[in-house]
Amino acid sequence: MALIFYSPINPADVWEAELKKHLPELDFRRWEAPGDKSEIDMALCWKPPPGGLAKFPNLKVIFSLAAGIDSLTADPALPDVPIVRMVEPSLTAGVAEYVLLHVLRHHKDQPRFAEQQKARIWQEHFAPPAWTRRVGLLGLGAIGAEAARMLVAVGFEVAGWSRTQKHLADVTSYFGPDQLDGFLARSDILVCLLPKTRQTDGILNAALFAKLPQGASLINAGRGDQLIEDDLLAALDSGQLSQATLDVFATEPLPPAHPFWAHPRITVTPHSAGDPFAASAARVVAENIRRFRAGQPLPHLYDRKAGY
Amino acid sequence: MALIFYSPINPADVWEAELKKHLPELDFRRWEAPGDKSEIDMALCWKPPPGGLAKFPNLKVIFSLAAGIDSLTADPALPDVPIVRMVEPSLTAGVAEYVLLHVLRHHKDQPRFAEQQKARIWQEHFAPPAWTRRVGLLGLGAIGAEAARMLVAVGFEVAGWSRTQKHLADVTSYFGPDQLDGFLARSDILVCLLPKTRQTDGILNAALFAKLPQGASLINAGRGDQLIEDDLLAALDSGQLSQATLDVFATEPLPPAHPFWAHPRITVTPHSAGDPFAASAARVVAENIRRFRAGQPLPHLYDRKAGY
Repeated sequence: MALIFYSPINPADVWEAELKKHLPELDFRRWEAPGDKSEIDMALCWKPPPGGLAKFPNLKVIFSLAAGIDSLTADPALPDVPIVRMVEPSLTAGVAEYVLLHVLRHHKDQPRFAEQQKARIWQEHFAPPAWTRRVGLLGLGAIGAEAARMLVAVGFEVAGWSRTQKHLADVTSYFGPDQLDGFLARSDILVCLLPKTRQTDGILNAALFAKLPQGASLINAGRGDQLIEDDLLAALDSGQLSQATLDVFATEPLPPAHPFWAHPRITVTPHSAGDPFAASAARVVAENIRRFRAGQPLPHLYDRKAGY
Repeated sequence: MALIFYSPINPADVWEAELKKHLPELDFRRWEAPGDKSEIDMALCWKPPPGGLAKFPNLKVIFSLAAGIDSLTADPALPDVPIVRMVEPSLTAGVAEYVLLHVLRHHKDQPRFAEQQKARIWQEHFAPPAWTRRVGLLGLGAIGAEAARMLVAVGFEVAGWSRTQKHLADVTSYFGPDQLDGFLARSDILVCLLPKTRQTDGILNAALFAKLPQGASLINAGRGDQLIEDDLLAALDSGQLSQATLDVFATEPLPPAHPFWAHPRITVTPHSAGDPFAASAARVVAENIRRFRAGQPLPHLYDRKAGY
């Protein structure tokens, strides 16, 4: 009974040390030295190589290091075991802080100040107060709810759109396909935090952009496949959208020749909005391991029907 | 009994219209066509030409369009009449939003992402959650208190330093000269919102930077004279400071040849953190005009002894 760890970005040393603070007896195995594969019953991972998890014949549960589990479910050889999405405070805070930062950048037009600085141009311009700016969040899960809470605290007029109705303080809840257009029509700054599913693939397209107020802006911290890239470029060209900040891309890393890198009205960040910090997240993973060992129900399970 | 208006950046038309919504009888005069100067008893202005207000022999009160009144008091010919500082919701919100934006930029190291984008480099890096980051606000007046409230809501560990003790929820209050060093020692991101006075001129200097944690960063939305510019450049060179965002400068507009414009670790904004929006601020100015006409005490008066 051992746990196999894999991540291209999270350090195994740190995670092992943090997990053992909570579970001193944990048999923690690294991807490159898994030992007897039949002893592995748990995996803790992000973006494992396709087919990789199938090599553990007794795998019983997968703990995702990310909130989105699409990189796991894209693996046709993925063992048919429960997948626990990562929902823990430091990841939630990190992405919510990212959303707030980039909403404020768009709101205060910091990109225009950056252009002016490059050209040594002193030209005052002032944003209206946040209470005149309408932010719309596509997706109101744990991360969307926390981003909404912060945006409300700053004073923005906040609405969210989700599959089902939500009840969050001072956040207007739009839900279901019928209410999407009304939500879009009132969103000056649109933030995508949706999980990747068949329903959300390609949702950020020309038809959707056309339903936003003219000059609206986009922040995508959902998944790259949700954005039709050519539609974004066309909407920026036409002025329908004023700017975009993107953390996720259909192809990651974003290829060096991609037009997004040098576009004057696109901000690119390398899928770095948030990450579970081991010191915070290990507590949650350890508790989930305890629950798994005790045969208790696991929280935040991947729902095959919903697709996330 | 008339009001004279002057501002290099705020449109007279808009202010006249907004003020008249509250005071339809107001005799609103523009700087370029003041009419009989002896009829002027009130001024509403920002950065009037030195000596300009002395030309109104019956001036009784000055309403500042800015929170800081140093550009008025720098005029040796300024009439000796009460000066009301601008304290109103849209200006307070605007500067507090600016502070929050740039604290988040520093916290998430958005400047490094911007450098990476320029070079088409995909390199993930993650900020720890805000609750591990200590923000220090120099100045806890109306604007500082609002910035502190927002920063606390996001989760930062917030302290402030001011002349007198303050009692703000979840904000550690340091006060007086004796407590400055302790405040600096715990400030990873230092924000200056101080008024310009003899005591604050030059306060952001090498000795102060040395008392911050190594690699701390600076945001100045106070006044340009508070910063010793060469000391900032030296602290950035040595690594004592990691970056700085500056909205105010000893000379404004910042001269085209100034080294700040092209410094890779300095963000320049052109004194645009906040501005009173006429639709919001006219309500407050109109109330102050009513109080003045009724002989009632005026709020937020310039205090010659305190210097602001």
